[in-house]
Amino acid sequence: MITKGLKGRDFITLRDFSKAEIETMLDAALRLKEDKVMRRSHTDVLPTRTLFMMFFNPSLRTRNSFEAGIFDLGGHAHFLEPSSTRIPALEGEETAYLTERISDVARVLSRMGDAIAIRILGDVVGWEYDKGLRIIEEFAKWSQVPVINMEEHIYHPCQGLADVMTLSELYGRDLRGRKLGVSWAYSPSTKKPIAPHHDFMYAASLFGPDIVFAHPPEMRIDPEVETAIAANLEASGGSYSVVDSMEEAAEDADVLYAKNYVCLDLLPPVASEPRHGDMAKLFDKYSDWTADERRMSLAKPDARYMHCLPCDRGHEVTDGVLDGKWGVTVFDEAENRLHAQKGMMSCIIP
Amino acid sequence: MITKGLKGRDFITLRDFSKAEIETMLDAALRLKEDKVMRRSHTDVLPTRTLFMMFFNPSLRTRNSFEAGIFDLGGHAHFLEPSSTRIPALEGEETAYLTERISDVARVLSRMGDAIAIRILGDVVGWEYDKGLRIIEEFAKWSQVPVINMEEHIYHPCQGLADVMTLSELYGRDLRGRKLGVSWAYSPSTKKPIAPHHDFMYAASLFGPDIVFAHPPEMRIDPEVETAIAANLEASGGSYSVVDSMEEAAEDADVLYAKNYVCLDLLPPVASEPRHGDMAKLFDKYSDWTADERRMSLAKPDARYMHCLPCDRGHEVTDGVLDGKWGVTVFDEAENRLHAQKGMMSCIIP
Amino acid sequence: MITKGLKGRDFITLRDFSKAEIETMLDAALRLKEDKVMRRSHTDVLPTRTLFMMFFNPSLRTRNSFEAGIFDLGGHAHFLEPSSTRIPALEGEETAYLTERISDVARVLSRMGDAIAIRILGDVVGWEYDKGLRIIEEFAKWSQVPVINMEEHIYHPCQGLADVMTLSELYGRDLRGRKLGVSWAYSPSTKKPIAPHHDFMYAASLFGPDIVFAHPPEMRIDPEVETAIAANLEASGGSYSVVDSMEEAAEDADVLYAKNYVCLDLLPPVASEPRHGDMAKLFDKYSDWTADERRMSLAKPDARYMHCLPCDRGHEVTDGVLDGKWGVTVFDEAENRLHAQKGMMSCIIP
Repeated sequence: MITKGLKGRDFITLRDFSKAEIETMLDAALRLKEDKVMRRSHTDVLPTRTLFMMFFNPSLRTRNSFEAGIFDLGGHAHFLEPSSTRIPALEGEETAYLTERISDVARVLSRMGDAIAIRILGDVVGWEYDKGLRIIEEFAKWSQVPVINMEEHIYHPCQGLADVMTLSELYGRDLRGRKLGVSWAYSPSTKKPIAPHHDFMYAASLFGPDIVFAHPPEMRIDPEVETAIAANLEASGGSYSVVDSMEEAAEDADVLYAKNYVCLDLLPPVASEPRHGDMAKLFDKYSDWTADERRMSLAKPDARYMHCLPCDRGHEVTDGVLDGKWGVTVFDEAENRLHAQKGMMSCIIP
Repeated sequence: MITKGLKGRDFITLRDFSKAEIETMLDAALRLKEDKVMRRSHTDVLPTRTLFMMFFNPSLRTRNSFEAGIFDLGGHAHFLEPSSTRIPALEGEETAYLTERISDVARVLSRMGDAIAIRILGDVVGWEYDKGLRIIEEFAKWSQVPVINMEEHIYHPCQGLADVMTLSELYGRDLRGRKLGVSWAYSPSTKKPIAPHHDFMYAASLFGPDIVFAHPPEMRIDPEVETAIAANLEASGGSYSVVDSMEEAAEDADVLYAKNYVCLDLLPPVASEPRHGDMAKLFDKYSDWTADERRMSLAKPDARYMHCLPCDRGHEVTDGVLDGKWGVTVFDEAENRLHAQKGMMSCIIP
Repeated sequence: MITKGLKGRDFITLRDFSKAEIETMLDAALRLKEDKVMRRSHTDVLPTRTLFMMFFNPSLRTRNSFEAGIFDLGGHAHFLEPSSTRIPALEGEETAYLTERISDVARVLSRMGDAIAIRILGDVVGWEYDKGLRIIEEFAKWSQVPVINMEEHIYHPCQGLADVMTLSELYGRDLRGRKLGVSWAYSPSTKKPIAPHHDFMYAASLFGPDIVFAHPPEMRIDPEVETAIAANLEASGGSYSVVDSMEEAAEDADVLYAKNYVCLDLLPPVASEPRHGDMAKLFDKYSDWTADERRMSLAKPDARYMHCLPCDRGHEVTDGVLDGKWGVTVFDEAENRLHAQKGMMSCIIP
């Protein structure tokens, strides 16, 4: 457990934190979860702290887990939608009276509260792969208080933290010898970011599992993130391999994590503009990539299905899997968003 | 006063609760109201509890009374609009990425907080009479925490509780010998649910008044609810009669409750689709059904006018009635939403 | 410091308060700011008080400073947008089911909480100069709890209070001998109210500065407010003069306050309807009225630039001014919204 060096830090990507620092957040999360089970108050952890939550996209889990979480710790969240403020804009993308430059928004908010959390992806960034991250980093550059990434296209570190917390509740914190099957899955929508896959694998990679990742050839992930995952697994006593069928990912797995995500090559900056129509056609070639009972039966008898939710039932996963013995963990995973984020906030918010 | 059996219960309709249980909620409400007058803190009643409020429709009284109420008790409300989350959908009514199945939404929220309150009626349910209730019941089926009905087309139990609390402040809890005139009233809009009428009469029916209910022949209420009201009145020492003019309801009444509501026969499932145009024409035949000074003068000298608000002034009720001696109770009725709901929440939220 | 007579008062315009009363609010604000620096809790100031914030227009600073401020004091703010409630309407401007008369909204809310704060200007009042104020006054007429003006076209008293608090941190509370240059500045938008100029000058006028106010001839301010400012300055040992170039306002100034505002003669009631197109053409004649480095260099060496934000960078003010040595005060000014409003609320909310 690391006692110094976390207060005041931004939480933008897990890659900014050491394994020991991430474990410290997980330790705090578990302690707060135990307290909550026993109804022991912990409003003395972050009393009268204000968290600004800026949502450029709809959210159920993220909004409610952050709002309930900071309240449990003694603080209060402001739910901010762009329509209710002027729209934060990068330099050169401003419109008089409609937007406000991020450097100003960040400095003003950081004078009035204690942390700024941001979700930004999809249409509002023109599906540009790294634009959400650039906007969050611009906030962090100007803010005097911690900036928290609530998901952009590349990273979803809060989800990664909750996922690895869930894995540790199932298997302990040492994941060596555990097979995590990870897979792309089909959806008729073409709007799901790749960030949850990245951070599920990245977070787990620190703890030594064998990750077998299945995807159609066109649905590659970010090579830089993939390299980091593989390097972590090498160092932690695990392994990383890529296969081309969900069956191979599922076979003898302890966990199957199967979820849809976009095709990076049909979105900017690779494509000059978002090609969702082409992506829908491409996806339809792989419409049988569903986490169904047959595939789950290839895994270990007590295997679990994982998904960060919301899921497209009947496409990404069948009702039989989600509502059956494999699916129970999905709701622990959702609940752990609350606890993991409380642990993280208690570490970084001064 | 009932001390066992309420914690953890859903609050979907008053019909699920015994008279003793409803009186226990009223007792708690009155105690909390006294505390508030004296500025005695009661944040120890539901400390750090989170209440999710899902509003599919606009609301002034319900939203503000619940949000202020849970805060008074030590908790915090999340104000959730469907546009800010994915839209909760029944099985078979889902759209990838736009909706999320209610079984998932309910299970996720109940992992993150302590109660789920829902308002759902009108356009979002296609004016189908029982669809809002079915959706709330689906939430309750999957939720591990209490589900609270903040109004659908059939029931508005929070309003009923506040109404009977208001009556008890005026006349004591024994309403035998009191005449409650209840009436349909005219409005140029055709959007007002029948739930407030149902639950005004249902809540009062437990305490023995004589209810005289006036409506144009086409504006029947739900026969099943009507039967329950009449049976309660029979058991509690009161009486129930239906008349066809507001004057008869008003005559010698202690209270005149006069408010617009829709014609059930012009909405699904009776009609194959909502017939608001025909309903407006029908309503216009009865455009003189207004609670005016002349009609109020038929009641007892100290009679009160009641309405759950918002009202259409000049149509349902005149300014002279609402802003005159008869109208003062309307604002007590609105205020009692706060106290009644606090009493109810303090009883059912674990 | 005035200890009696403030509890329960509305805060609609600074002109309703004596200098001693305003100083009392500033004293409270400074004390609460010191407490906050030391992380000393002051949740005992307004425990369990509910503040209703009604925003008819977008807001970043006002919303977040009020929501964080009441929370610091132990209370809770409800963020209310008209789309989530029925729309409060003046008598005679009502539509059945869509609106609710202000007399009813105000009475209901004041039964459920402890203060009502309102922002209303621009399109929602048809750009009618005094309509926002009339609506706020109608709320105050019916409310039993304090009503707070969060900005309409004429007054922005919270901003004025924060501005004079900022001036007092720079120069002490005696501003005699200090030159405040105040100016109209160019923007390609034509939507900025005149209220911040009014209340910057009004609040400062109580403390004796020399105000030199520059504007193009067409951009007059409200003559009644101007008369009050000049009278205050005469009484407080300062002076008031009007010039026709930003340079003259800047010359040897301690502060340059330069910001865009609308042309009153192109809006109702002077014009029969809003003439934003003509206003844009008029503004373009003065497109060089920008607070730039050259103009700031005419001021004293340690002069500050002030603006209530959001600003249109490159038009009202250059990046060089805002992000340079002159601009730092702008963020103190924004932060002081939080502290000034906390001071004000702690004085007036019972």
